Amino acid sequence: MITGKNYIGNRLSANGSITYKTFNPKLNIENEFEFYEASVEEINEAAFLASDAYITYNQKSGKEKATFLNAIADNIIDLGDDLIQVYCAESGLPEGRAKGERGRTIGQLRAFATLIEEGSWVDATIDMAQPNREPMPKVDLRKMQVPLGPVVIFGASNFPLAFSTAGGDTASALAAGCPVIVKSHPMHAGTGELVASAIIKAAEATGMPNGVFSNLNSKGIEVGVQLVKHSAIKAVGFTGSITGGRALFDIAAQRDEPIPVFAEMGSINPVIMLPQALQNRATDLAKTYAGSITVGSGQFCTNPGLLMGIKSDGLTNFVNSLSEEIVKIEPSCMLHPNIIGAYEKNKQTAIDQAGLIVAADYGAEVSVNHARQAVVTVEGKTFLENSGLHQEVFGPFSMVVQCEDAKELQQIVSNLEGQLTGTIISEADEIANYPHVIAALQNRVGRIIFNGVPTGVEVCPSMQHGGPYPASTDSRFTAVGTHSIKRWVRPFSYQNWPDKLLPNELKNSNPLSIVRVIDNERTKKGI
Amino acid sequence: MITGKNYIGNRLSANGSITYKTFNPKLNIENEFEFYEASVEEINEAAFLASDAYITYNQKSGKEKATFLNAIADNIIDLGDDLIQVYCAESGLPEGRAKGERGRTIGQLRAFATLIEEGSWVDATIDMAQPNREPMPKVDLRKMQVPLGPVVIFGASNFPLAFSTAGGDTASALAAGCPVIVKSHPMHAGTGELVASAIIKAAEATGMPNGVFSNLNSKGIEVGVQLVKHSAIKAVGFTGSITGGRALFDIAAQRDEPIPVFAEMGSINPVIMLPQALQNRATDLAKTYAGSITVGSGQFCTNPGLLMGIKSDGLTNFVNSLSEEIVKIEPSCMLHPNIIGAYEKNKQTAIDQAGLIVAADYGAEVSVNHARQAVVTVEGKTFLENSGLHQEVFGPFSMVVQCEDAKELQQIVSNLEGQLTGTIISEADEIANYPHVIAALQNRVGRIIFNGVPTGVEVCPSMQHGGPYPASTDSRFTAVGTHSIKRWVRPFSYQNWPDKLLPNELKNSNPLSIVRVIDNERTKKGI
Repeated sequence: MITGKNYIGNRLSANGSITYKTFNPKLNIENEFEFYEASVEEINEAAFLASDAYITYNQKSGKEKATFLNAIADNIIDLGDDLIQVYCAESGLPEGRAKGERGRTIGQLRAFATLIEEGSWVDATIDMAQPNREPMPKVDLRKMQVPLGPVVIFGASNFPLAFSTAGGDTASALAAGCPVIVKSHPMHAGTGELVASAIIKAAEATGMPNGVFSNLNSKGIEVGVQLVKHSAIKAVGFTGSITGGRALFDIAAQRDEPIPVFAEMGSINPVIMLPQALQNRATDLAKTYAGSITVGSGQFCTNPGLLMGIKSDGLTNFVNSLSEEIVKIEPSCMLHPNIIGAYEKNKQTAIDQAGLIVAADYGAEVSVNHARQAVVTVEGKTFLENSGLHQEVFGPFSMVVQCEDAKELQQIVSNLEGQLTGTIISEADEIANYPHVIAALQNRVGRIIFNGVPTGVEVCPSMQHGGPYPASTDSRFTAVGTHSIKRWVRPFSYQNWPDKLLPNELKNSNPLSIVRVIDNERTKKGI
Repeated sequence: MITGKNYIGNRLSANGSITYKTFNPKLNIENEFEFYEASVEEINEAAFLASDAYITYNQKSGKEKATFLNAIADNIIDLGDDLIQVYCAESGLPEGRAKGERGRTIGQLRAFATLIEEGSWVDATIDMAQPNREPMPKVDLRKMQVPLGPVVIFGASNFPLAFSTAGGDTASALAAGCPVIVKSHPMHAGTGELVASAIIKAAEATGMPNGVFSNLNSKGIEVGVQLVKHSAIKAVGFTGSITGGRALFDIAAQRDEPIPVFAEMGSINPVIMLPQALQNRATDLAKTYAGSITVGSGQFCTNPGLLMGIKSDGLTNFVNSLSEEIVKIEPSCMLHPNIIGAYEKNKQTAIDQAGLIVAADYGAEVSVNHARQAVVTVEGKTFLENSGLHQEVFGPFSMVVQCEDAKELQQIVSNLEGQLTGTIISEADEIANYPHVIAALQNRVGRIIFNGVPTGVEVCPSMQHGGPYPASTDSRFTAVGTHSIKRWVRPFSYQNWPDKLLPNELKNSNPLSIVRVIDNERTKKGI
């Protein structure tokens, strides 16, 4: 049941005076429930509860925390169709997507549970004492990863489940041993509250401390700003716009005690189409890319917003085919009137730039809040000279840059801002002729794809979802996959510490049977 | 031979008009050589050279980079007594310390050479394709660490070799594949130039690109500020004061493209002395700590500036013994008149605080620029109420906080700023009675020590040298040990990339025979 209240730890609370409702973009009406924005007192209470909970939660074993994460996953499944219906009503996304995203969310929770139950992720590193070493004895040193403290997670508009309340950021932070306060996304506050109730229920059932999780509603930016400024908060996770992510990064950097912010922000995900591939497969590529540009109404972080090629008949054929194919696709509903409003505005701003040519723009009638997909083309020279053309148009929109030659292509790639992904479309041997283009692209992205589409982000250890700024605020971390836990931990060393007081991960006997590095040798053996 | 010029890549250059000399604090005279501060043009040239060098250097194999690092170590040894003499003349530190630090510097370079020659440090992680997976095929994904780009390193005043020109920061960045620009510390510019010449000679001999290393002189802060602001620079390493480190952190965070700064800054390295230990060993502890407080004239990052205990006869005995012991120690020369000036001023500021009692202050005549060590005491309540007393007094100075009880002790520890280290002095079973004090201490430090002194930082994989702010600007990294390489790299994923175009670390055949994680299994096997 949706109450519209905040979870301050295990307690529902609604002391604030600001209220708001979510919106059903498909029906173009407000949803029924009223949500109460968290008050300053509620924010403080959640932060201090998290700080207290940290001390206890930090002491829970990997197995105990894994039980908690698995219980969250179970409880999300138990929410059943209620969750799916609210998800669809608050996002305009279809039921299949809702169920797929729920599966991903549950899969992420279980993957982190498996990781921490096994336990080797803490990177236990031991260097044994050498009391007789000359000229100085060597001490016994043992290091492992420990949690940073309470973390604030900002839910993403475009993933109401997989990157929101119990999404990858929350799952990785809870797995790391950090209490989490979610700043719920106002567009899907009901979905958020249902998932929060599943987390709270799991926390209570598995004996986790009150405050290990809180869910705060907010319509505007104030709640988030106060959370990031709060001295009890030790790290921040965010998925969203460059403006929003950078604002939080700036606030965090200006604190008396700066804290790390991992913000996964905008990306236009450049795709380089090499000439032979275009000559041989322009039509097929056009079909594939028409699909990738419009999937989820273009609302994926990895949406291909920039396609680049060297002028040729192949490129012309590709543009023509893409233009034909993309308008065949049925427009879909965007997440919110504000998002479609921004899409239409940004699309128009792009189209109005000098030198832009509209190759395709869906012209037929569309249902309310449905996006008209579009493709534009531009000369390489124009693109180079106008950095305004590098801006993301969040939605089913892509720009084809037509370059004079490989040199101009390389120059464009070198001047791109940081991106989540870069894609090369190439025949098998063709790519070897473009080493400088490839090197330039690698320098600008976090993940590079051969003959595919950037949409579709596999959740696995080898995934990198992040990239040079502004794709993310710290390219040294990833938001997707089990390695994302590294954002929330720090190494901690024990010197000559008594064995019985060491955490189990570092005890001589290796009671958890985890993999450790002892005197540079990786082993499960005890000492 | 010292020229006083900057190394802009392999070229000596002195276009600037600002000059300065280093100072011999023992003789209290300027040293003979004149150094030319780098001009704006020289800074730009070094930055763009580094940017170009990155593309080539990035492609060098681990073996090639290891040869480079080992050649640097060889060339530093070849500098022979000239280096030791200049080091001593510019620091006032004794020859034994100079040789010890040279040994450590060379050891660090060789440790990183061994690490990258072996190659597994890149964390190669592979998840194989599953083309028949339902409902969606799984792509082939392969991830490894890649260098961030050109790095600026700020030499530390207190480690003219081990944390300066070819010190741990430079060695780890070069090992990672990042070109390095050193902003030479003005107090040991001659030592810096000699070591820079060893690096440049090594770069030329081992075929490294021009610009892989530059060494820029500067008297003030301008050169450093310009470097951190430069768009070609992708990360910063710093060891020094909180003021200096925070200023650079702020500049880096305010760039259009923010870049990571790892600044290792101040720490007062709290030591908690438990009652039974004090009762049984006050005199021995006093001798040990008199040594630790004064070693290197108190100019180590891990100098114990804060000793804490619960009021007892043992604590009184300890304070009395420490006061007797510390004045028996011969005062030593500090690094520079500015440093001893700051020491005397900060010491006096501390002593002037209400409630401070001077327990010991070396009163006899001292040679010029030699520091008079001191110990002061204060009540726990006074310390809690006056955060000015938490400020580091860089030099041979320590404050003993006398607490009413364990609760007050815990409260003090909980309210401390972040620290590099925390130490517990305890009898074997005593520590178990203070779980909350220990938990509070762990939360504030990067390394915790049982029955020892914080001075002495072992260089090994399990060392953590860094800690919660302001001990460092990012507690998730370390400045010492091979793991310090992680500051300068980011994960990079290849999706469905052709085997022959993959870096050797990720090729099917595993030609480097490194350890990789393939489908969650750690193995040296090929695919």
